[in-house]
Amino acid sequence: MKLGIIQMEITTDKENNMKKALSEIRSLSEKGADIVILPEMFNCPYNMNFFSQYAEPSEGKCWSLLAKAAKENNIYLIAGSIPEIDDQGNIYNTSYIFDRNGLEIGKHRKIHLFDINVQGGQRFMESAVLTAGDKVTIFDSEFCRIGVAICYDYRFPELTRLMVDQGAKIIIIPAAFNMTTGPAHWELLFRQRAVDNQVFSIGVAPSRDYNASYVSYGNSIVVSPWGEVLLRLGEEEASVVIDIDLAMVDKVRAELPLLKHRRHDLYKLIDNKNP
Amino acid sequence: MKLGIIQMEITTDKENNMKKALSEIRSLSEKGADIVILPEMFNCPYNMNFFSQYAEPSEGKCWSLLAKAAKENNIYLIAGSIPEIDDQGNIYNTSYIFDRNGLEIGKHRKIHLFDINVQGGQRFMESAVLTAGDKVTIFDSEFCRIGVAICYDYRFPELTRLMVDQGAKIIIIPAAFNMTTGPAHWELLFRQRAVDNQVFSIGVAPSRDYNASYVSYGNSIVVSPWGEVLLRLGEEEASVVIDIDLAMVDKVRAELPLLKHRRHDLYKLIDNKNP
Repeated sequence: MKLGIIQMEITTDKENNMKKALSEIRSLSEKGADIVILPEMFNCPYNMNFFSQYAEPSEGKCWSLLAKAAKENNIYLIAGSIPEIDDQGNIYNTSYIFDRNGLEIGKHRKIHLFDINVQGGQRFMESAVLTAGDKVTIFDSEFCRIGVAICYDYRFPELTRLMVDQGAKIIIIPAAFNMTTGPAHWELLFRQRAVDNQVFSIGVAPSRDYNASYVSYGNSIVVSPWGEVLLRLGEEEASVVIDIDLAMVDKVRAELPLLKHRRHDLYKLIDNKNP
Repeated sequence: MKLGIIQMEITTDKENNMKKALSEIRSLSEKGADIVILPEMFNCPYNMNFFSQYAEPSEGKCWSLLAKAAKENNIYLIAGSIPEIDDQGNIYNTSYIFDRNGLEIGKHRKIHLFDINVQGGQRFMESAVLTAGDKVTIFDSEFCRIGVAICYDYRFPELTRLMVDQGAKIIIIPAAFNMTTGPAHWELLFRQRAVDNQVFSIGVAPSRDYNASYVSYGNSIVVSPWGEVLLRLGEEEASVVIDIDLAMVDKVRAELPLLKHRRHDLYKLIDNKNP
Protein backbone atom coordinates (compact mmCIF):
# COMPACT_ATOMS: atom_id res chain seq x y z
CA MET A 1 0.00 0.00 0.00
CA LYS A 2 1.62 3.23 -1.17
CA LEU A 3 0.90 6.66 0.24
CA GLY A 4 1.76 9.81 -1.66
CA ILE A 5 2.53 12.85 0.48
CA ILE A 6 2.54 16.32 -1.01
CA GLN A 7 4.26 18.98 1.09
CA MET A 8 3.85 22.05 -1.08
CA GLU A 9 4.27 25.77 -0.79
CA ILE A 10 1.02 27.74 -0.67
CA THR A 11 1.01 31.06 -2.48
CA THR A 12 -1.64 33.76 -2.73
CA ASP A 13 -2.36 32.58 -6.27
CA LYS A 14 -5.23 30.10 -5.99
CA GLU A 15 -5.01 28.94 -9.61
CA ASN A 16 -1.32 28.27 -9.33
CA ASN A 17 -1.77 26.42 -6.04
CA MET A 18 -4.33 24.16 -7.74
CA LYS A 19 -2.10 23.70 -10.77
CA LYS A 20 0.81 22.63 -8.58
CA ALA A 21 -1.37 20.26 -6.55
CA LEU A 22 -2.71 18.61 -9.70
CA SER A 23 0.73 18.22 -11.19
CA GLU A 24 2.12 16.67 -7.98
CA ILE A 25 -0.85 14.30 -7.79
CA ARG A 26 -0.07 13.12 -11.31
CA SER A 27 3.60 12.70 -10.53
CA LEU A 28 2.94 10.63 -7.37
CA SER A 29 0.38 8.51 -9.14
CA GLU A 30 3.00 7.74 -11.79
CA LYS A 31 5.27 6.63 -8.95
CA GLY A 32 2.63 4.13 -7.84
CA ALA A 33 0.76 5.98 -5.07
CA ASP A 34 -2.59 4.46 -4.11
CA ILE A 35 -3.63 7.29 -1.81
CA VAL A 36 -2.45 10.86 -2.31
CA ILE A 37 -2.67 13.43 0.49
CA LEU A 38 -2.51 17.20 0.17
CA PRO A 39 -1.85 19.64 3.04
CA GLU A 40 -4.33 21.78 4.97
CA MET A 41 -5.51 24.90 3.08
CA PHE A 42 -3.45 24.00 0.03
CA ASN A 43 -5.16 26.45 -2.30
CA CYS A 44 -5.36 29.41 0.10
CA PRO A 45 -2.92 31.08 2.49
CA TYR A 46 -3.64 30.09 6.08
CA ASN A 47 -4.80 33.55 7.01
CA MET A 48 -8.23 34.58 8.18
CA ASN A 49 -8.39 37.45 5.70
CA PHE A 50 -8.22 35.01 2.79
CA PHE A 51 -10.64 32.23 3.73
CA SER A 52 -13.78 34.04 2.62
CA GLN A 53 -12.28 35.31 -0.63
CA TYR A 54 -10.93 31.88 -1.61
CA ALA A 55 -13.96 29.87 -0.51
CA GLU A 56 -16.02 27.85 -3.01
CA PRO A 57 -19.20 25.84 -2.58
CA SER A 58 -19.05 22.07 -2.49
CA GLU A 59 -18.88 20.74 -6.06
CA GLY A 60 -17.38 24.04 -7.15
CA LYS A 61 -14.45 24.53 -9.51
CA CYS A 62 -11.66 23.25 -7.24
CA TRP A 63 -13.79 20.32 -6.12
CA SER A 64 -14.36 19.34 -9.76
CA LEU A 65 -10.67 19.54 -10.63
CA LEU A 66 -9.83 17.35 -7.63
CA ALA A 67 -12.51 14.77 -8.45
CA LYS A 68 -11.21 14.61 -12.00
CA ALA A 69 -7.62 14.22 -10.81
CA ALA A 70 -8.58 11.29 -8.58
CA LYS A 71 -10.30 9.56 -11.49
CA GLU A 72 -7.68 10.28 -14.14
CA ASN A 73 -4.89 9.10 -11.89
CA ASN A 74 -6.85 6.18 -10.45
CA ILE A 75 -6.02 7.11 -6.86
CA TYR A 76 -7.77 7.87 -3.60
CA LEU A 77 -7.35 11.57 -2.97
CA ILE A 78 -7.43 13.14 0.48
CA ALA A 79 -7.63 16.67 -0.81
CA GLY A 80 -5.92 18.39 2.13
CA SER A 81 -8.36 21.14 2.84
CA ILE A 82 -9.79 24.21 1.16
CA PRO A 83 -12.24 26.85 2.39
CA GLU A 84 -15.82 25.77 1.64
CA ILE A 85 -18.81 28.13 1.68
CA ASP A 86 -22.36 26.85 2.16
CA ASP A 87 -25.75 28.31 1.15
CA GLN A 88 -25.96 30.33 4.36
CA GLY A 89 -22.55 31.87 3.76
CA ASN A 90 -20.84 29.82 6.48
CA ILE A 91 -17.22 29.03 5.74
CA TYR A 92 -15.64 25.70 6.69
CA ASN A 93 -12.14 24.29 6.60
CA THR A 94 -13.02 21.25 4.50
CA SER A 95 -11.23 18.13 3.33
CA TYR A 96 -12.84 16.36 0.38
CA ILE A 97 -12.11 12.68 -0.12
CA PHE A 98 -12.41 11.01 -3.52
CA ASP A 99 -12.12 7.39 -4.58
CA ARG A 100 -10.35 6.02 -7.65
CA ASN A 101 -13.42 6.84 -9.75
CA GLY A 102 -13.45 10.44 -8.69
CA LEU A 103 -16.54 9.97 -6.49
CA GLU A 104 -16.67 11.91 -3.25
CA ILE A 105 -16.68 9.24 -0.53
CA GLY A 106 -16.05 11.49 2.43
CA LYS A 107 -15.90 15.11 3.44
CA HIS A 108 -14.47 16.41 6.68
CA ARG A 109 -15.23 19.85 7.99
CA LYS A 110 -12.74 20.75 10.71
CA ILE A 111 -14.51 20.09 13.99
CA HIS A 112 -12.23 21.92 16.42
CA LEU A 113 -11.42 25.48 15.45
CA PHE A 114 -7.93 26.69 16.25
CA ASP A 115 -7.92 29.54 18.75
CA ILE A 116 -4.55 30.06 20.35
CA ASN A 117 -2.81 32.97 22.03
CA VAL A 118 0.61 31.98 23.37
CA GLN A 119 2.44 34.75 25.17
CA GLY A 120 5.38 35.72 22.95
CA GLY A 121 4.35 33.03 20.45
CA GLN A 122 1.55 32.20 18.06
CA ARG A 123 -1.84 33.93 18.01
CA PHE A 124 -4.66 32.78 15.70
CA MET A 125 -8.45 32.84 16.04
CA GLU A 126 -9.98 30.56 13.45
CA SER A 127 -13.41 30.71 15.08
CA ALA A 128 -13.70 34.40 14.21
CA VAL A 129 -14.21 33.49 10.55
CA LEU A 130 -14.88 29.77 10.25
CA THR A 131 -17.78 27.56 11.25
CA ALA A 132 -17.00 24.20 12.85
CA GLY A 133 -18.07 20.89 11.35
CA ASP A 134 -19.94 18.35 13.40
CA LYS A 135 -19.11 14.95 11.94
CA VAL A 136 -16.45 12.31 12.51
CA THR A 137 -15.05 11.31 9.12
CA ILE A 138 -14.04 7.82 8.11
CA PHE A 139 -14.06 6.13 4.74
CA ASP A 140 -13.44 2.67 3.38
CA SER A 141 -10.72 1.89 0.90
CA GLU A 142 -9.81 -1.48 -0.61
CA PHE A 143 -7.02 -1.59 2.00
CA CYS A 144 -8.77 -0.72 5.25
CA ARG A 145 -10.94 1.87 6.95
CA ILE A 146 -9.29 5.28 7.24
CA GLY A 147 -10.06 8.28 9.45
CA VAL A 148 -9.53 11.87 8.34
CA ALA A 149 -9.43 15.01 10.45
CA ILE A 150 -7.75 18.39 10.14
CA CYS A 151 -4.84 19.76 12.17
CA TYR A 152 -6.19 21.03 15.52
CA ASP A 153 -8.76 18.22 15.50
CA TYR A 154 -5.88 15.85 16.22
CA ARG A 155 -5.22 17.57 19.55
CA PHE A 156 -8.31 15.87 20.93
CA PRO A 157 -7.66 12.21 21.70
CA GLU A 158 -11.39 11.48 21.82
CA LEU A 159 -11.74 12.00 18.09
CA THR A 160 -9.06 9.48 17.13
CA ARG A 161 -10.57 7.00 19.57
CA LEU A 162 -13.98 7.30 17.91
CA MET A 163 -12.42 6.64 14.51
CA VAL A 164 -10.52 3.64 15.85
CA ASP A 165 -13.63 2.28 17.56
CA GLN A 166 -15.27 2.41 14.15
CA GLY A 167 -12.42 0.41 12.66
CA ALA A 168 -9.89 2.91 11.35
CA LYS A 169 -6.35 1.56 10.95
CA ILE A 170 -4.89 4.71 9.43
CA ILE A 171 -5.46 8.29 10.55
CA ILE A 172 -4.72 10.99 7.98
CA ILE A 173 -4.38 14.60 9.11
CA PRO A 174 -3.86 17.46 6.67
CA ALA A 175 -2.38 20.06 9.02
CA ALA A 176 -0.35 23.21 9.40
CA PHE A 177 1.36 23.53 12.75
CA ASN A 178 3.35 26.70 13.24
CA MET A 179 6.78 27.67 14.53
CA THR A 180 5.52 27.70 18.15
CA THR A 181 3.48 24.48 18.24
CA GLY A 182 5.46 22.60 15.59
CA PRO A 183 8.81 22.25 17.36
CA ALA A 184 7.01 21.74 20.69
CA HIS A 185 4.31 19.24 19.80
CA TRP A 186 4.11 18.05 16.18
CA GLU A 187 6.12 14.83 16.16
CA LEU A 188 5.09 14.04 19.73
CA LEU A 189 1.41 14.25 18.84
CA PHE A 190 1.61 12.12 15.72
CA ARG A 191 3.70 9.52 17.52
CA GLN A 192 1.56 9.23 20.65
CA ARG A 193 -1.74 9.05 18.75
CA ALA A 194 -0.17 6.19 16.78
CA VAL A 195 0.96 4.41 19.95
CA ASP A 196 -2.28 4.91 21.91
CA ASN A 197 -4.44 3.75 19.05
CA GLN A 198 -2.07 1.37 17.28
CA VAL A 199 -2.67 2.97 13.91
CA PHE A 200 -0.60 4.57 11.19
CA SER A 201 -0.62 8.28 11.96
CA ILE A 202 0.02 10.62 9.05
CA GLY A 203 0.38 14.39 8.94
CA VAL A 204 0.71 16.38 5.73
CA ALA A 205 1.64 20.05 5.97
CA PRO A 206 2.44 22.96 3.68
CA SER A 207 6.14 23.68 3.32
CA ARG A 208 7.59 26.49 5.41
CA ASP A 209 7.36 30.02 4.07
CA TYR A 210 8.92 32.61 6.36
CA ASN A 211 7.22 35.38 4.36
CA ALA A 212 3.73 34.08 5.08
CA SER A 213 1.69 35.66 7.86
CA TYR A 214 1.28 32.17 9.36
CA VAL A 215 4.51 30.19 9.04
CA SER A 216 3.86 26.47 8.56
CA TYR A 217 6.24 24.14 10.37
CA GLY A 218 6.30 21.65 7.49
CA ASN A 219 7.72 18.31 8.70
CA SER A 220 5.05 16.10 7.10
CA ILE A 221 5.24 12.80 8.93
CA VAL A 222 4.33 9.11 8.73
CA VAL A 223 4.37 7.14 11.99
CA SER A 224 3.93 3.38 12.46
CA PRO A 225 1.50 1.81 14.96
CA TRP A 226 4.48 1.21 17.29
CA GLY A 227 5.34 4.92 17.21
CA GLU A 228 8.30 4.77 14.85
CA VAL A 229 8.80 7.74 12.56
CA LEU A 230 8.89 6.15 9.09
CA LEU A 231 9.12 9.44 7.25
CA ARG A 232 9.64 13.01 8.29
CA LEU A 233 10.11 15.73 5.74
CA GLY A 234 11.93 18.99 6.41
CA GLU A 235 10.77 22.51 5.81
CA GLU A 236 11.09 22.47 2.00
CA GLU A 237 8.64 21.38 -0.65
CA ALA A 238 8.73 17.65 -1.31
CA SER A 239 6.46 15.02 -2.82
CA VAL A 240 7.18 11.43 -1.84
CA VAL A 241 5.69 7.97 -2.06
CA ILE A 242 6.04 5.71 0.97
CA ASP A 243 5.16 2.04 1.26
CA ILE A 244 3.42 1.06 4.47
CA ASP A 245 2.79 -2.44 5.77
CA LEU A 246 -0.77 -2.54 7.09
CA ALA A 247 -0.15 -5.92 8.75
CA MET A 248 1.77 -3.99 11.41
CA VAL A 249 -1.49 -2.73 12.85
CA ASP A 250 -2.72 -6.24 13.67
CA LYS A 251 0.72 -7.34 14.85
CA VAL A 252 1.08 -4.49 17.34
CA ARG A 253 -2.52 -4.90 18.52
CA ALA A 254 -1.85 -8.58 19.19
CA GLU A 255 1.45 -8.06 21.03
CA LEU A 256 0.27 -5.22 23.27
CA PRO A 257 -3.54 -5.38 23.26
CA LEU A 258 -4.19 -1.81 24.39
CA LEU A 259 -7.54 -1.46 22.68
CA LYS A 260 -8.81 -4.69 24.24
CA HIS A 261 -7.43 -3.82 27.68
CA ARG A 262 -9.54 -0.70 28.03
CA ARG A 263 -11.82 -0.84 31.07
CA HIS A 264 -15.19 -0.09 29.57
CA ASP A 265 -16.77 -0.95 32.91
CA LEU A 266 -15.03 2.13 34.36
CA TYR A 267 -15.12 4.58 31.46
CA LYS A 268 -16.74 4.74 28.08
CA LEU A 269 -16.31 7.21 25.27
CA ILE A 270 -19.70 7.99 23.78
CA ASP A 271 -20.14 9.04 20.15
CA ASN A 272 -23.15 11.32 20.47
CA LYS A 273 -23.95 11.03 16.77
CA ASN A 274 -23.76 7.20 16.80
CA PRO A 275 -24.58 6.29 20.39
CA MET B 1 6.00 23.21 45.46
CA LYS B 2 8.75 20.63 45.72
CA LEU B 3 8.49 17.06 44.50
CA GLY B 4 10.84 14.37 45.74
CA ILE B 5 11.53 11.54 43.30
CA ILE B 6 13.08 8.28 44.49
CA GLN B 7 14.50 6.10 41.73
CA MET B 8 15.82 3.16 43.72
CA GLU B 9 17.09 -0.33 43.07
CA ILE B 10 14.73 -3.11 44.10
CA THR B 11 16.33 -6.21 45.58
CA THR B 12 14.85 -9.51 46.68
CA ASP B 13 15.25 -8.37 50.30
CA LYS B 14 11.96 -6.80 51.29
CA GLU B 15 13.23 -5.41 54.61
CA ASN B 16 16.16 -3.76 52.95
CA ASN B 17 13.99 -2.31 50.20
CA MET B 18 11.79 -0.76 52.89
CA LYS B 19 14.80 0.49 54.82
CA LYS B 20 16.21 2.18 51.76
CA ALA B 21 12.86 3.74 50.87
CA LEU B 22 12.44 5.15 54.39
CA SER B 23 15.95 6.54 54.43
CA GLU B 24 15.50 8.22 51.03
CA ILE B 25 12.17 9.67 52.14
CA ARG B 26 13.90 11.23 55.14
CA SER B 27 16.70 12.59 53.02
CA LEU B 28 14.34 14.20 50.48
CA SER B 29 12.19 15.64 53.24
CA GLU B 30 15.31 17.25 54.68
CA LYS B 31 15.91 18.77 51.25
CA GLY B 32 12.47 20.39 51.40
CA ALA B 33 10.27 17.97 49.48
CA ASP B 34 6.52 18.46 49.98
CA ILE B 35 5.48 15.33 48.11
CA VAL B 36 7.69 12.26 47.91
CA ILE B 37 7.12 9.56 45.28
CA LEU B 38 8.41 6.01 45.30
CA PRO B 39 8.55 3.67 42.28
CA GLU B 40 6.21 0.83 41.34
CA MET B 41 6.76 -2.39 43.36
CA PHE B 42 9.48 -0.78 45.41
CA ASN B 43 9.56 -3.48 48.10
CA CYS B 44 9.27 -6.49 45.79
CA PRO B 45 10.95 -7.55 42.55
CA TYR B 46 8.67 -7.01 39.58
CA ASN B 47 8.23 -10.70 38.95
CA MET B 48 5.03 -12.70 39.14
CA ASN B 49 6.63 -15.36 41.32
CA PHE B 50 7.23 -12.82 44.09
CA PHE B 51 3.98 -10.87 44.32
CA SER B 52 2.14 -13.41 46.46
CA GLN B 53 5.07 -14.03 48.78
CA TYR B 54 5.71 -10.29 49.38
CA ALA B 55 2.06 -9.27 49.65
CA GLU B 56 0.66 -7.75 52.83
CA PRO B 57 -2.85 -6.72 53.81
CA SER B 58 -3.79 -3.06 53.89
CA GLU B 59 -2.63 -1.54 57.19
CA GLY B 60 0.04 -4.23 57.40
CA LYS B 61 3.65 -3.76 58.41
CA CYS B 62 4.90 -1.90 55.33
CA TRP B 63 1.78 0.26 55.28
CA SER B 64 2.41 1.25 58.90
CA LEU B 65 6.04 2.12 58.25
CA LEU B 66 5.02 4.28 55.32
CA ALA B 67 2.28 6.07 57.24
CA LYS B 68 4.76 6.76 60.01
CA ALA B 69 7.35 8.07 57.56
CA ALA B 70 4.85 10.49 56.04
CA LYS B 71 3.99 11.84 59.46
CA GLU B 72 7.51 12.01 60.85
CA ASN B 73 8.77 13.79 57.78
CA ASN B 74 5.71 15.98 57.37
CA ILE B 75 5.29 15.12 53.71
CA TYR B 76 2.70 13.73 51.35
CA LEU B 77 3.83 10.27 50.38
CA ILE B 78 2.84 8.53 47.15
CA ALA B 79 4.15 5.17 48.20
CA GLY B 80 4.97 3.82 44.75
CA SER B 81 3.30 0.46 44.88
CA ILE B 82 3.53 -2.79 46.81
CA PRO B 83 1.62 -6.05 46.50
CA GLU B 84 -1.55 -5.96 48.61
CA ILE B 85 -3.55 -9.03 49.61
CA ASP B 86 -7.20 -8.81 50.60
CA ASP B 87 -9.40 -11.10 52.73
CA GLN B 88 -10.25 -13.27 49.75
CA GLY B 89 -6.61 -13.77 48.90
CA ASN B 90 -6.72 -11.50 45.88
CA ILE B 91 -3.46 -9.69 45.20
CA TYR B 92 -3.36 -6.12 43.91
CA ASN B 93 -0.63 -3.81 42.69
CA THR B 94 -1.42 -1.01 45.15
CA SER B 95 -0.24 2.53 45.71
CA TYR B 96 -0.99 3.97 49.16
CA ILE B 97 -1.16 7.73 49.54
CA PHE B 98 -0.56 9.44 52.89
CA ASP B 99 -0.90 13.05 53.95
CA ARG B 100 1.47 15.03 56.15
CA ASN B 101 -0.19 13.52 59.23
CA GLY B 102 0.35 9.98 58.06
CA LEU B 103 -3.33 9.48 57.26
CA GLU B 104 -4.17 7.38 54.23
CA ILE B 105 -5.95 9.81 51.90
CA GLY B 106 -5.93 7.65 48.79
CA LYS B 107 -5.21 4.16 47.60
CA HIS B 108 -4.85 3.12 44.00
CA ARG B 109 -5.09 -0.46 42.90
CA LYS B 110 -3.72 -0.80 39.37
CA ILE B 111 -6.73 -0.82 37.07
CA HIS B 112 -5.17 -2.09 33.85
CA LEU B 113 -3.09 -5.22 34.20
CA PHE B 114 0.00 -5.48 32.05
CA ASP B 115 -0.18 -8.35 29.59
CA ILE B 116 2.32 -8.02 26.78
CA ASN B 117 3.99 -10.43 24.39
CA VAL B 118 6.21 -8.63 21.90
CA GLN B 119 7.89 -10.88 19.35
CA GLY B 120 11.60 -10.90 20.22
CA GLY B 121 10.94 -8.46 23.08
CA GLN B 122 9.15 -8.27 26.41
CA ARG B 123 6.67 -10.87 27.67
CA PHE B 124 4.76 -10.40 30.94
CA MET B 125 1.31 -11.52 32.10
CA GLU B 126 0.34 -9.60 35.21
CA SER B 127 -3.27 -10.78 35.04
CA ALA B 128 -2.16 -14.36 35.74
CA VAL B 129 -1.45 -13.41 39.35
CA LEU B 130 -2.94 -10.01 40.09
CA THR B 131 -6.49 -8.74 40.43
CA ALA B 132 -7.35 -5.39 38.86
CA GLY B 133 -8.62 -2.42 40.83
CA ASP B 134 -11.76 -0.62 39.79
CA LYS B 135 -11.39 2.96 41.00
CA VAL B 136 -10.00 6.19 39.63
CA THR B 137 -7.71 7.71 42.27
CA ILE B 138 -7.38 11.39 43.00
CA PHE B 139 -6.56 13.21 46.19
CA ASP B 140 -6.44 16.77 47.40
CA SER B 141 -3.30 18.42 48.68
CA GLU B 142 -2.81 21.97 49.91
CA PHE B 143 -1.39 22.71 46.43
CA CYS B 144 -3.95 21.20 44.08
CA ARG B 145 -5.81 18.05 43.21
CA ILE B 146 -3.55 15.21 42.10
CA GLY B 147 -4.26 11.98 40.20
CA VAL B 148 -2.39 8.74 40.81
CA ALA B 149 -2.26 5.63 38.66
CA ILE B 150 0.26 2.87 38.09
CA CYS B 151 2.40 2.23 35.01
CA TYR B 152 0.27 0.45 32.40
CA ASP B 153 -2.75 2.46 33.57
CA TYR B 154 -1.14 5.47 31.92
CA ARG B 155 -1.38 3.82 28.51
CA PHE B 156 -5.11 4.53 28.53
CA PRO B 157 -5.82 8.18 27.77
CA GLU B 158 -9.36 7.85 29.14
CA LEU B 159 -8.08 7.47 32.70
CA THR B 160 -6.04 10.68 32.67
CA ARG B 161 -8.98 12.50 31.15
CA LEU B 162 -11.25 11.38 33.98
CA MET B 163 -8.75 12.65 36.54
CA VAL B 164 -8.42 15.96 34.75
CA ASP B 165 -12.19 16.31 34.45
CA GLN B 166 -12.28 15.93 38.22
CA GLY B 167 -9.74 18.72 38.61
CA ALA B 168 -6.31 17.08 38.69
CA LYS B 169 -3.41 19.37 37.75
CA ILE B 170 -0.68 16.84 38.42
CA ILE B 171 -0.63 13.18 37.40
CA ILE B 172 1.75 10.92 39.32
CA ILE B 173 2.59 7.49 37.95
CA PRO B 174 4.78 5.02 39.83
CA ALA B 175 5.88 2.80 36.97
CA ALA B 176 8.38 0.31 35.63
CA PHE B 177 8.66 0.28 31.88
CA ASN B 178 11.11 -2.24 30.46
CA MET B 179 13.89 -2.30 27.88
CA THR B 180 11.38 -2.89 25.06
CA THR B 181 8.67 -0.37 25.96
CA GLY B 182 10.94 2.13 27.73
CA PRO B 183 13.10 3.29 24.83
CA ALA B 184 10.09 3.09 22.49
CA HIS B 185 7.37 4.80 24.50
CA TRP B 186 8.27 6.09 27.98
CA GLU B 187 9.17 9.74 27.40
CA LEU B 188 6.68 10.02 24.54
CA LEU B 189 3.83 8.85 26.78
CA PHE B 190 4.63 11.14 29.70
CA ARG B 191 5.06 14.11 27.39
CA GLN B 192 1.90 13.62 25.35
CA ARG B 193 -0.32 13.00 28.38
CA ALA B 194 1.03 16.28 29.74
CA VAL B 195 0.31 18.12 26.49
CA ASP B 196 -3.16 16.65 25.92
CA ASN B 197 -4.27 17.34 29.46
CA GLN B 198 -2.15 20.37 30.30
CA VAL B 199 -0.94 18.85 33.55
CA PHE B 200 2.38 18.04 35.15
CA SER B 201 3.08 14.43 34.22
CA ILE B 202 5.40 12.51 36.53
CA GLY B 203 6.79 8.99 36.27
CA VAL B 204 8.87 7.35 38.99
CA ALA B 205 10.60 4.07 38.20
CA PRO B 206 12.98 1.62 39.84
CA SER B 207 16.58 1.98 38.69
CA ARG B 208 17.82 -0.44 36.04
CA ASP B 209 19.11 -3.81 37.16
CA TYR B 210 20.29 -6.00 34.30
CA ASN B 211 20.33 -9.02 36.62
CA ALA B 212 16.63 -8.76 37.40
CA SER B 213 14.18 -11.00 35.54
CA TYR B 214 12.31 -7.84 34.53
CA VAL B 215 14.71 -5.04 33.69
CA SER B 216 13.29 -1.63 34.60
CA TYR B 217 14.04 1.15 32.14
CA GLY B 218 14.53 3.73 34.90
CA ASN B 219 14.41 7.25 33.44
CA SER B 220 12.09 8.75 36.06
CA ILE B 221 10.63 11.86 34.50
CA VAL B 222 8.91 15.15 35.23
CA VAL B 223 7.15 16.89 32.33
CA SER B 224 5.55 20.35 32.28
CA PRO B 225 2.02 21.06 31.03
CA TRP B 226 3.57 22.30 27.76
CA GLY B 227 5.36 18.98 27.29
CA GLU B 228 8.85 20.08 28.31
CA VAL B 229 10.99 17.49 30.08
CA LEU B 230 11.97 19.23 33.32
CA LEU B 231 13.80 16.23 34.74
CA ARG B 232 14.81 12.91 33.35
CA LEU B 233 16.97 10.55 35.38
CA GLY B 234 19.19 7.90 33.86
CA GLU B 235 19.37 4.20 34.67
CA GLU B 236 21.12 4.55 38.05
CA GLU B 237 19.69 5.07 41.51
CA ALA B 238 18.99 8.72 42.29
CA SER B 239 16.86 10.72 44.70
CA VAL B 240 16.15 14.30 43.73
CA VAL B 241 13.99 17.23 44.68
CA ILE B 242 12.49 19.33 41.91
CA ASP B 243 10.60 22.59 42.17
CA ILE B 244 7.56 22.89 39.96
CA ASP B 245 5.54 26.00 39.20
CA LEU B 246 1.87 25.05 39.37
CA ALA B 247 0.85 28.37 37.79
CA MET B 248 2.04 26.90 34.50
CA VAL B 249 -1.06 24.71 34.37
CA ASP B 250 -3.42 27.69 34.29
CA LYS B 251 -1.14 29.62 31.94
CA VAL B 252 -1.01 26.84 29.35
CA ARG B 253 -4.74 26.18 29.68
CA ALA B 254 -5.43 29.86 29.01
CA GLU B 255 -3.09 30.16 26.03
CA LEU B 256 -4.22 26.99 24.24
CA PRO B 257 -7.61 26.10 25.75
CA LEU B 258 -7.64 22.43 24.74
CA LEU B 259 -9.84 21.28 27.58
CA LYS B 260 -12.45 23.94 26.83
CA HIS B 261 -12.31 23.31 23.09
CA ARG B 262 -13.45 19.71 23.41
CA ARG B 263 -16.68 19.04 21.49
CA HIS B 264 -18.87 17.46 24.12
CA ASP B 265 -21.78 17.69 21.70
CA LEU B 266 -19.95 15.13 19.53
CA TYR B 267 -18.25 12.92 22.11
CA LYS B 268 -18.34 12.52 25.82
CA LEU B 269 -16.20 10.42 28.12
CA ILE B 270 -18.40 8.81 30.74
CA ASP B 271 -17.10 7.89 34.20
CA ASN B 272 -19.23 4.85 34.96
CA LYS B 273 -18.60 5.15 38.69
CA ASN B 274 -19.51 8.86 38.79
CA PRO B 275 -21.87 9.27 35.85
